[in-house]
Amino acid sequence: MTPSPPRAVILLSGGLDSATCLALARQQGFECHALSVAYGQRHAAEIAAARRIAAALGAHEHRLAHVELGQFGGSALTDPAIAIPENSEGDDIPVTYGPARNTVMLSMALAWAEALGACDVFIGVNAVDYSGYPDCRPEFIAAFQAMARLATKAGIEGRPLSIHTPLIELSKAEIILLGTTLGVEFELTVSCYQADDEGSACGHCDACRLRRAGFTAANITDPTKYRISS
Amino acid sequence: MTPSPPRAVILLSGGLDSATCLALARQQGFECHALSVAYGQRHAAEIAAARRIAAALGAHEHRLAHVELGQFGGSALTDPAIAIPENSEGDDIPVTYGPARNTVMLSMALAWAEALGACDVFIGVNAVDYSGYPDCRPEFIAAFQAMARLATKAGIEGRPLSIHTPLIELSKAEIILLGTTLGVEFELTVSCYQADDEGSACGHCDACRLRRAGFTAANITDPTKYRISS
Repeated sequence: MTPSPPRAVILLSGGLDSATCLALARQQGFECHALSVAYGQRHAAEIAAARRIAAALGAHEHRLAHVELGQFGGSALTDPAIAIPENSEGDDIPVTYGPARNTVMLSMALAWAEALGACDVFIGVNAVDYSGYPDCRPEFIAAFQAMARLATKAGIEGRPLSIHTPLIELSKAEIILLGTTLGVEFELTVSCYQADDEGSACGHCDACRLRRAGFTAANITDPTKYRISS
Repeated sequence: MTPSPPRAVILLSGGLDSATCLALARQQGFECHALSVAYGQRHAAEIAAARRIAAALGAHEHRLAHVELGQFGGSALTDPAIAIPENSEGDDIPVTYGPARNTVMLSMALAWAEALGACDVFIGVNAVDYSGYPDCRPEFIAAFQAMARLATKAGIEGRPLSIHTPLIELSKAEIILLGTTLGVEFELTVSCYQADDEGSACGHCDACRLRRAGFTAANITDPTKYRISS
């Protein structure tokens, strides 16, 4: 009898990065339990994209967990009063940053991992293109992992939990190249902060600009559906 | 002009411990933003109790955040298939333990604190009576605080977040004595794992037994409404 593959929880936003992350976890032999966290973000089209990606990439199951995080405000992604930025520059933290968002999403993944008996959690954070977000930095991830090992039964019992961030040091172009070799269908993914219900992208927000530049730098045709030509 | 009091987020479950924690934060001069997290627990009566306690103890505001944590299972508090224990003993982790529950609740408090510009979070965890829960231990709290300081804007900007656990080393009797001196109306609080809609307690579950023993040890009349005499 072949042993069961180890289980992993993969945070799946519906974007390009987390899709690549899921493909990588599958390639590494994990039984993948994909988790999308709906926290009141504007880009609900990403949730529909996440369902398609989970199916296309052979996730064992896909779950959606609602978390009432948007009520606290403080982010352009959940607060209609804050405009979506189109040309963020410099060292400031972007207004799309959501207070403690990755902490909350990783905590939800941790809860599911513990209930599943899984010791591996994957998150597609990236410190290169989004370096302004405090909770995308390697030192944050290391601290979360240290905390998680103390928070759980598994940690106490000597089965320490690992937070995998395979994309953290990659550029957007490198992620696109990696995803391409892993068979990710990028046309299923949605990165735009203000995608419409069909998942068509605005082409102008920071997320669109990064994605577009990534495909150009990778010399791969961008399959994104844009609402406007530019 | 007097300066505004510092803001703090207080996790408020509706039980005896978190009510005492809120009273203490008020006494220390904080503007208290009370947060109840509904994660699918059976004892929904606690949420109603939390509203009454927040009002009685002068919280600046009280919010309820739903988090779909119960769907992951693994705890007697959210899974009707697991019986509520009445005589837990020994070193095992009780079945009322919820996977990563305190991690998720503290993450939600962290998110609100960051949105409010608050640097202080209070949680009424206790390592004495519930020593079987991994996420009630001082070393877990210290690790969460270290993570939180890296996760947030405030941490980056040199305003480090503090997780206050003023009850962590107190016995239940000591908490009851402290709450009494702070004017906590314990008849408003609900500890029972299977309280009815009016908040009446079963008198037999682990939480009821601990609470009852605490009042006896503190030599204070127990104001709890029990459904049965025993």
